[in-house]
Amino acid sequence: MINTQVKLAARPVGNPKESDLLIEESATPSIQEGEVLIKTKYISLDPAMRGWMNEGKSYIKPIQIGEVFRAGTAGQIIESNNPDFVVGQYVTGGWGVQEYAVSTGKDLVKVDTNIAPLTTYLATLGMPGMTAYFGLLDTGLPKEGETVVVSGASGAVGSVVGQIAKIKGCKVVGIAGDQEKCDYCVNELGFDACINYKTEDVRKALKTACPEGIDIYFDNVGGEILDIVLGQIRMKARIVICGAISQYNNTEPVKGPSNYLALLVNRAKMEGIVVFDNAANYGKAAREMAGWIHEGKLQSKVHIEKGIRNFLPTMMMLFSGKNFGKLILEVE
Amino acid sequence: MINTQVKLAARPVGNPKESDLLIEESATPSIQEGEVLIKTKYISLDPAMRGWMNEGKSYIKPIQIGEVFRAGTAGQIIESNNPDFVVGQYVTGGWGVQEYAVSTGKDLVKVDTNIAPLTTYLATLGMPGMTAYFGLLDTGLPKEGETVVVSGASGAVGSVVGQIAKIKGCKVVGIAGDQEKCDYCVNELGFDACINYKTEDVRKALKTACPEGIDIYFDNVGGEILDIVLGQIRMKARIVICGAISQYNNTEPVKGPSNYLALLVNRAKMEGIVVFDNAANYGKAAREMAGWIHEGKLQSKVHIEKGIRNFLPTMMMLFSGKNFGKLILEVE
Repeated sequence: MINTQVKLAARPVGNPKESDLLIEESATPSIQEGEVLIKTKYISLDPAMRGWMNEGKSYIKPIQIGEVFRAGTAGQIIESNNPDFVVGQYVTGGWGVQEYAVSTGKDLVKVDTNIAPLTTYLATLGMPGMTAYFGLLDTGLPKEGETVVVSGASGAVGSVVGQIAKIKGCKVVGIAGDQEKCDYCVNELGFDACINYKTEDVRKALKTACPEGIDIYFDNVGGEILDIVLGQIRMKARIVICGAISQYNNTEPVKGPSNYLALLVNRAKMEGIVVFDNAANYGKAAREMAGWIHEGKLQSKVHIEKGIRNFLPTMMMLFSGKNFGKLILEVE
Repeated sequence: MINTQVKLAARPVGNPKESDLLIEESATPSIQEGEVLIKTKYISLDPAMRGWMNEGKSYIKPIQIGEVFRAGTAGQIIESNNPDFVVGQYVTGGWGVQEYAVSTGKDLVKVDTNIAPLTTYLATLGMPGMTAYFGLLDTGLPKEGETVVVSGASGAVGSVVGQIAKIKGCKVVGIAGDQEKCDYCVNELGFDACINYKTEDVRKALKTACPEGIDIYFDNVGGEILDIVLGQIRMKARIVICGAISQYNNTEPVKGPSNYLALLVNRAKMEGIVVFDNAANYGKAAREMAGWIHEGKLQSKVHIEKGIRNFLPTMMMLFSGKNFGKLILEVE
């Protein structure tokens, strides 16, 4: 069997291009005692991937040049020399952008596709869902009746943040870059409002939607929108810094939030989160969220593109906002 | 008796100038039943004053045009129709930049000049000391062995922050704009190091002084130094936003911290503080700090200028860094 792998070839400047990647074909390795062979079904595309391509200190070490591109993955065991895994078992892990992978099983999580489709384990029950769950509940600390604003509102993280905030009795206002996405947040997910930042004056629209100000802002985008929100926070507001997708392909320095002194005026807090810190509690969170899914309180949308060779253009959809729902690459 | 008063005449753009103030002489009003007449001895000069001159939402309402300039004050009761106050009693309050003031006594705090000189009640035992105490202890949450960096290190707030951090067993690195101030922090106050930002490369000097990174940054200055510190914070660092003196006279937008995503990488927190929120606990803090003063663990330096008509040039010393120690105007 031929194993197609996508490797990092060069560190991009600004937008990544095809020459920054190397697509290689090689023989699929045979497994040793204790190992399993996995056939990749789905590859998760996440904004954080752009950061992993850069050199320098971050919350996780960069992908090395020549290394298989790091990614969250879901697949099926097709050969097993490990008594813990039977052939046919579905698993998730982070074996990267390749069609086949060998594993000792240590980093694999067995998943039950009777509870939720395999793609859900890369979305609401995977890293994006965990990010939303712990970021909102443990750092945002929502209280009933508070106003929560979330950017990237229809995305894999934002859509879960908004729905959990509704479950907790908050007023929820989304910000997204497309009318269809905004309508989905309001009509399907039950947000109280959603602002289209491409067509609306975000400052005015936020004032209208949140006349008493903003208690929690869950920020996936950074840039100008973070600044506008800071101008409208309430006393003791919490800003959860989850990401800054607007800044990831910048060749200029990141735009810092000019209104950060609003933190002082309002005795407010801005705090960064990284999902991996909650690994010990993923199971508990997944059980609670699976319950909400079954009760119909937590919906999700998946956007599937096909073909491992389309990895780069698919990833770039995240930055142009062309995906609608959790972006996943299906490996055929 | 003639009462000289300094009032706000216009809202300044950039650096305040004499025409933004009005110096008026009028008859000192006579006191009614229940009131006292205070002779102002000392007026506190604080960076926050610049913000009070601006229109717009802040943690406290702006000084109105035509209103006596707001200021922390210390003085002596010279007439009393209030049984709670005897003539000769020293008091502190916030009756503003004027030679005499009438008060019902409700907003006055009686102080004992046998415990500490009257000026200390505008410094370490006044608002700057309270800001340092609650900002460091309740928001910075210092733990023994951690590294604390404080800007405006020799100032009224910074010098207290550094000394309390030493009392709590931290390593303390100051940042100041003058070699004499730096030497004072290290030699007199016991800081472990102090960086002169006007002559040293702050980035390199901080790396040398804090090779393991920074756990707490108490920020009085904002601007470029905040950005440099963010680049060197440790996991779970706490940034206490107390002020941004470098930005207060800007006519351009405030410089936002371009490195704010270091909060994400390091799961760190940036939080704004306003001293007034702790009013209920000032007494307890003052008693603890008075104890430290008596044990010689908490020193302070006062910089006194004279003459109420020198209010504006004296206040402006704060922004050029020309004062050395807590800046106070003595009313003769």
